[in-house]
Amino acid sequence: MFLRNAWYCAGWSDGLSQGANALLVRRIAGESIVLYRKPSGEVVALEDRCRHRQAPLSLGRKEGDALRCMYHGWKFGPDGMCIEVPGQPRVVQQAFVRSFPVIEKNDWIWVWMGDPALASEELICHSVGPNHPEWDLRTAHIEVNTNYRLEIANLTDLSHVAWVHQDTFGGTTAYSAIRAKQTVTARGLNQEFWVRGVPAPTFAKHLFPEEARFDLHFNVTFTVPCNFILHFRVFTAGKAADGPSDGQLLLDTFSSQAVTPRDGESVDYYYSWGAQRGTTAPGLIELLIESNHAAFLEDKRILEGQFQRMKELPDYRMCDYHQDSGPAKMLWVLDKLLKEEAENVA
Amino acid sequence: MFLRNAWYCAGWSDGLSQGANALLVRRIAGESIVLYRKPSGEVVALEDRCRHRQAPLSLGRKEGDALRCMYHGWKFGPDGMCIEVPGQPRVVQQAFVRSFPVIEKNDWIWVWMGDPALASEELICHSVGPNHPEWDLRTAHIEVNTNYRLEIANLTDLSHVAWVHQDTFGGTTAYSAIRAKQTVTARGLNQEFWVRGVPAPTFAKHLFPEEARFDLHFNVTFTVPCNFILHFRVFTAGKAADGPSDGQLLLDTFSSQAVTPRDGESVDYYYSWGAQRGTTAPGLIELLIESNHAAFLEDKRILEGQFQRMKELPDYRMCDYHQDSGPAKMLWVLDKLLKEEAENVA
Amino acid sequence: MFLRNAWYCAGWSDGLSQGANALLVRRIAGESIVLYRKPSGEVVALEDRCRHRQAPLSLGRKEGDALRCMYHGWKFGPDGMCIEVPGQPRVVQQAFVRSFPVIEKNDWIWVWMGDPALASEELICHSVGPNHPEWDLRTAHIEVNTNYRLEIANLTDLSHVAWVHQDTFGGTTAYSAIRAKQTVTARGLNQEFWVRGVPAPTFAKHLFPEEARFDLHFNVTFTVPCNFILHFRVFTAGKAADGPSDGQLLLDTFSSQAVTPRDGESVDYYYSWGAQRGTTAPGLIELLIESNHAAFLEDKRILEGQFQRMKELPDYRMCDYHQDSGPAKMLWVLDKLLKEEAENVA
Repeated sequence: MFLRNAWYCAGWSDGLSQGANALLVRRIAGESIVLYRKPSGEVVALEDRCRHRQAPLSLGRKEGDALRCMYHGWKFGPDGMCIEVPGQPRVVQQAFVRSFPVIEKNDWIWVWMGDPALASEELICHSVGPNHPEWDLRTAHIEVNTNYRLEIANLTDLSHVAWVHQDTFGGTTAYSAIRAKQTVTARGLNQEFWVRGVPAPTFAKHLFPEEARFDLHFNVTFTVPCNFILHFRVFTAGKAADGPSDGQLLLDTFSSQAVTPRDGESVDYYYSWGAQRGTTAPGLIELLIESNHAAFLEDKRILEGQFQRMKELPDYRMCDYHQDSGPAKMLWVLDKLLKEEAENVA
Repeated sequence: MFLRNAWYCAGWSDGLSQGANALLVRRIAGESIVLYRKPSGEVVALEDRCRHRQAPLSLGRKEGDALRCMYHGWKFGPDGMCIEVPGQPRVVQQAFVRSFPVIEKNDWIWVWMGDPALASEELICHSVGPNHPEWDLRTAHIEVNTNYRLEIANLTDLSHVAWVHQDTFGGTTAYSAIRAKQTVTARGLNQEFWVRGVPAPTFAKHLFPEEARFDLHFNVTFTVPCNFILHFRVFTAGKAADGPSDGQLLLDTFSSQAVTPRDGESVDYYYSWGAQRGTTAPGLIELLIESNHAAFLEDKRILEGQFQRMKELPDYRMCDYHQDSGPAKMLWVLDKLLKEEAENVA
Repeated sequence: MFLRNAWYCAGWSDGLSQGANALLVRRIAGESIVLYRKPSGEVVALEDRCRHRQAPLSLGRKEGDALRCMYHGWKFGPDGMCIEVPGQPRVVQQAFVRSFPVIEKNDWIWVWMGDPALASEELICHSVGPNHPEWDLRTAHIEVNTNYRLEIANLTDLSHVAWVHQDTFGGTTAYSAIRAKQTVTARGLNQEFWVRGVPAPTFAKHLFPEEARFDLHFNVTFTVPCNFILHFRVFTAGKAADGPSDGQLLLDTFSSQAVTPRDGESVDYYYSWGAQRGTTAPGLIELLIESNHAAFLEDKRILEGQFQRMKELPDYRMCDYHQDSGPAKMLWVLDKLLKEEAENVA
């Protein structure tokens, strides 16, 4: 159901401090995990479950590099090995908890849920973090009660912008006519497309004359499990009907979005949005992230309603149409990788 | 579990306006339904589930006679046929959603859950709506977390008035001695009985001298799925021990009650109560509906407690007694119709 | 899953008054029970389920020694036999509800869940109630969402005081080195041990100089289902390394604790703590019970977290250590009795 050999986002770096009581509890792909920082700042991820009697280590206490369970005092190192059992000189060899590879990159914390030997940093998706010198970004987080496959379908078919987001990102039905250039990759799907000659999106309408028209360029890199990286640029509307816009670049933005399934029924959604420092005006970054948040609440509403209906009738016969090609391709990639994992285990 | 070929009440007419955003979501007999009014005022009931990816149509937008799903913009006519798929010239023939026959009658909206060819208006129970010229009525609604079979048993055995409603409708244990004249019909059960020489019901005690006595006449028409239509009259106590009271008619009331199962664990209960304009006094109608509401909260408390206990021990061996004849007969009618439906499907 | 032939605590005596509406609802070992007092003061425990249609008798009405169901008025005596069916001269012989043996002792109400013929008062654990002339005690109650086997494991391994209760009862890791004298009994486990030369517990630190040291004596009588009776004494630290402390007795306390499983996922926890009147100072009893309550909330937090994790992975392979001997012995006693009951039934 979940890809094991993949990096899952556990949150923004600034969500996990160095404080003595700073323990972050996460549910990732059906497993309970506790994260903390060593004195060096390095992040540790352990199964949130003491080997002794399953008490949550997240109710425990940081001690240097280690974490002590506060039920009976068993202490575990960052590699998950038990290094102290109070009142007993010897530590049982089986007394370890699972330790997960962790990498912090571009202000995101990534946890590898599968075989540690396969945890290559190269498999972490490219992203732009809020501390990048060239971009001015804001970050946020929401929770959505849906299955992550429905998030994948949502993010790989942006025609929904016309309808779900008519009051935020939308303002034109041109999105329904998108014909994206789609490229299947080893672990994802790239999509690139133009939306040309359209009015300003609803959230920015007040900044432009009503008759102003724009060319919008989307470049999406989507990777498993559910990472959506978007380079989005706005030009004044040009005359070109194909290829690059011959209008003037007004705004150059970047959004990094990571959706982490907690289980089969809910996800954590971490995202940022912002612009190249050269293309921003005062207040613009705040406007971007606020409209982004409003738009994601629109998605949340429709995705949770959809998931409710799907649970009512799991065998309902749905109808497809041309815009399902993005979701179909990306879910095909995911299912292929899931099948490979299942075969490697068997 | 639920009768399909039956009219189910979806609410009072004034609960569904003509407004642009007026979409009513209902769960009826295990199915999710969205209702809206066409510009003509006619009510439409569709399955609340877009054919494309099951997004709720109740999160959509009314467009004339049609309803547009606001996930990817598919548009459905009042017959459930898809009439537009944005960005695609052709509409797939299978792209329909289920449309349910609807009739609005006496201020109630009725939805037919079974074969549309069998949706005869004659099967709608007789009722009196709040806009009837001769009756002065008030309406209300409660939700009860119980199975509707327990509501049937409650409403077809009014001996419970003595106990459940001692503080509202009751005030005498004479209800325990009811011997109703019962007539089984094709789709229900009629019950008619007198309760004679009793004090005023608790809720009206303050209106009469303590020694005042009354003859009460009940005429109940009960039909599937769970519709309780009551003509209830109050006379001054007469001398007749059988047949009509020879007392004076004080109050002539009518109550229409429709219980709609949402699923196997909860119901919507729509009801009215009021009196012939000729027999009312100032404030009396309000007193009737308020005491009715208080009484139904008494029912809700006992029915929800009972349902909780039944779920704890589904195989518990219960004991019957003489007052179970009403419930037994009505549930026999329901089960006979359920069996016929099951056989017709097979 | 639950021992039937055992006394289960249903609460403190002062929790069930003589009032006309005083009906106590309890869930004990998976069964719904209603308790009330006869005019004589004697407590009655009946299954909270009318024989007629399973309406809760706890929504009923006390009438002398009897309890009337307020759905259709059936009336049951304290032995559970139906003694009146309104409107019907004869009472059906099968119309009884289960009646449970009840004994009130030392201010606790005990209910016997098994064969009434085996309900010997001698099987009720020794305890000290708040009305005892020699002890000054306070009582309290909490609810914990866990399985009672985890409560047993918690209470028969007090090494957890060092960690769970570092901010209340603890203040030393010496508890981790406890080597209790353990005696298995027919229906329980006795444990006796000293903790010597330790600082004051955290909650009482402000009452003593920092360098003050104490010898602590614990004498625990634990019996099925989950009753923890503790005689706890504090001495000034003496020189004896074995046997009784040669320090001075400062405080002589007694705590009676009864954990009643509601079902497999939650328990009611009734407890008292206090001291011999000769060894108390003003405000001390209040300090004891307040710190006790704070400590039990610490337990609740860890037990509920642990139970959550156990439900996630019921087949998780845990590791044992030397302090598990108390839990292991007590659960062995419980499982032996459960097996015997199962065999006697078969």
